[in-house]
Amino acid sequence: MSSSHLLVNSEDLRRYVEDLYYIGYGFKKEHAEIVADVLLAADLRGVDSHGVQRLVWYDDYIEKGLFNTNPNIKITTETLSTANIDGDNGLGMVVSKFAMELTIKKAKECGTGLVSVGNSNHYGIAAYYSMMALKEDMIGISMTNVMPIAAPTHGRERMLGTNPLSFAIPAKTEEPFVLDMATTAVAAGKLEVAAREEREVPKGVVLDKDGNVSTNPNSLKEGGALVMLGGESYELGGHKGYGLATLVNALSGALSGSIFGINPSDAQIFENPAVKPMNIGHFFGAFQIEGFRKKDEVLDSMDGMLRSLKDSKPAPGYEKVYVAGEKEFEVEKERLKNGIPLHISTVKELINFAQKYKINHDFLALAED
Amino acid sequence: MSSSHLLVNSEDLRRYVEDLYYIGYGFKKEHAEIVADVLLAADLRGVDSHGVQRLVWYDDYIEKGLFNTNPNIKITTETLSTANIDGDNGLGMVVSKFAMELTIKKAKECGTGLVSVGNSNHYGIAAYYSMMALKEDMIGISMTNVMPIAAPTHGRERMLGTNPLSFAIPAKTEEPFVLDMATTAVAAGKLEVAAREEREVPKGVVLDKDGNVSTNPNSLKEGGALVMLGGESYELGGHKGYGLATLVNALSGALSGSIFGINPSDAQIFENPAVKPMNIGHFFGAFQIEGFRKKDEVLDSMDGMLRSLKDSKPAPGYEKVYVAGEKEFEVEKERLKNGIPLHISTVKELINFAQKYKINHDFLALAED
Repeated sequence: MSSSHLLVNSEDLRRYVEDLYYIGYGFKKEHAEIVADVLLAADLRGVDSHGVQRLVWYDDYIEKGLFNTNPNIKITTETLSTANIDGDNGLGMVVSKFAMELTIKKAKECGTGLVSVGNSNHYGIAAYYSMMALKEDMIGISMTNVMPIAAPTHGRERMLGTNPLSFAIPAKTEEPFVLDMATTAVAAGKLEVAAREEREVPKGVVLDKDGNVSTNPNSLKEGGALVMLGGESYELGGHKGYGLATLVNALSGALSGSIFGINPSDAQIFENPAVKPMNIGHFFGAFQIEGFRKKDEVLDSMDGMLRSLKDSKPAPGYEKVYVAGEKEFEVEKERLKNGIPLHISTVKELINFAQKYKINHDFLALAED
Repeated sequence: MSSSHLLVNSEDLRRYVEDLYYIGYGFKKEHAEIVADVLLAADLRGVDSHGVQRLVWYDDYIEKGLFNTNPNIKITTETLSTANIDGDNGLGMVVSKFAMELTIKKAKECGTGLVSVGNSNHYGIAAYYSMMALKEDMIGISMTNVMPIAAPTHGRERMLGTNPLSFAIPAKTEEPFVLDMATTAVAAGKLEVAAREEREVPKGVVLDKDGNVSTNPNSLKEGGALVMLGGESYELGGHKGYGLATLVNALSGALSGSIFGINPSDAQIFENPAVKPMNIGHFFGAFQIEGFRKKDEVLDSMDGMLRSLKDSKPAPGYEKVYVAGEKEFEVEKERLKNGIPLHISTVKELINFAQKYKINHDFLALAED
């Protein structure tokens, strides 16, 4: 960790976020706790881009009145195993926790729960919700559309988001399998880092504003588009990443009615959030393992598969083969013990909010020197 | 179409496959019809590698007694919305048609059906089963593990198959969205074509037997491994393709008990099919659109999304943006009208079978000249 970071205890940081949302913004206490839990999960798992760094972005929305801070979340359709939820423009974390709880409840009742959600907002890390199912020894699914920033294969316009999807599957003695992936080759944050470090990016990551393959990390900012997982052509399978991004938009958006990409002006929402609420859609799933085979046998099979992958021979130049989620569990253990490294610029923003809303921030004291 | 191909009427070809399986191999009539329907769907959709070309491969298995030609397919576990099926080592298409019908039945009853299948075999194109749901205006899911041939990210051993997944979602006036993708960058067939044409393959497709990045199309044959969608490193997202392949193996294999990758000798099954039956696993899903929002509204949203993607501006050098499944629907229309082009080597094999099993093959007459 460089000297540009402050190590912060995760429980202090959790309390801070709860205070900011409960005392500062006036959310219900239980909603503030959800926001803190989702953001802390990201920071603990090493997904810093989706942790407390985001507070500034959310603050902007709340200040402008674009989020409903006390949403009336409603179930609009329901069958034994499925439902659709209207998030009433609430904060994505609050709406999504409610939705995933309903999903799990349905899975308990009939084996499977599938719930689409509309009229919501950015929900943080996808894996938070899929992993909720793990506590019940269920398989969990979570996905969301986000503002269009990526071009379809052979296209040049921003038509789809990074549209992440997550699957979480329990194991017995191994850590669970937790896949949480954007359907673009990389997320926008990688380009920002490269731009700051004045590095080129590899081909297959971004197009310039005219739709040409680019290695300039500023191309996205200058009106370009992200490239789908698999690259900008069919040759290495770019149409597969594009297909997955479309799938996520269909399940999160078409089912719930919160779809991006129909209207070109959707893209303007992100560029100018003051235009209107984001109207993001999500899709959640949960299913009981016992609905297929004895739980013990399935978990043994998961252990065997994960172990054989981790024990397989690495390619030249690499020390080991990882499975999805493994690195994040390692980071979580380390950060729970040693603290979460916050960039000084983030620390300063947190202090600003604390002073503005008169909440305790003693644990950030060192950085004020 | 080159002169090395014969154009064959699809109904003639269907009758031929039915006769081969019913008269030739002694399958039940309805099972022979299923095999013909799945293979013809592949040939009509332009997925030639999974069409009647495969008859030779299947024949080898049937001759060696490795498939059960009259399987007793059993439901071993069942809840309102889920089930597991033991395929009794039947042909993958026969087992899978049964499984997807059960999946759809469950979705009709409670909104969702999810069915895992073990003790099965190669099932043809994944999209055949997901598309069965379209006829009911449902969303369909299909995936399968296959013999290990691809290395995990930063790995060098063959640990996972090309593990395809398919999602089919209906639209109103547009053709349905049909995603059907291997989770490796390319399928093995692409390397065979490049080897025949003495072309190098791009980086990001195959590793040599020592785990090094290779551009030699023969590397796979020489003991190498396919690369996951996104490439051999984390840089362009190879861990995402790897994560998806693992997911498919978990849902198809760990749930059903037919998992590849636990035991290194699993890999030998493909190299030496005489060792034992393949014990492949599948996973199927179906869900009612009405379980989320009014069908009409969802289909309108799908139309809007698909149309906006197809109408979006192409990148320089390209004429149009396609959506998943669109090209296959175009090929199908064309081939239903003009016939299916069969390579002369395939035609000769079909004639051999016909003579051996004394079935009608007049429609292949031209090629005998």
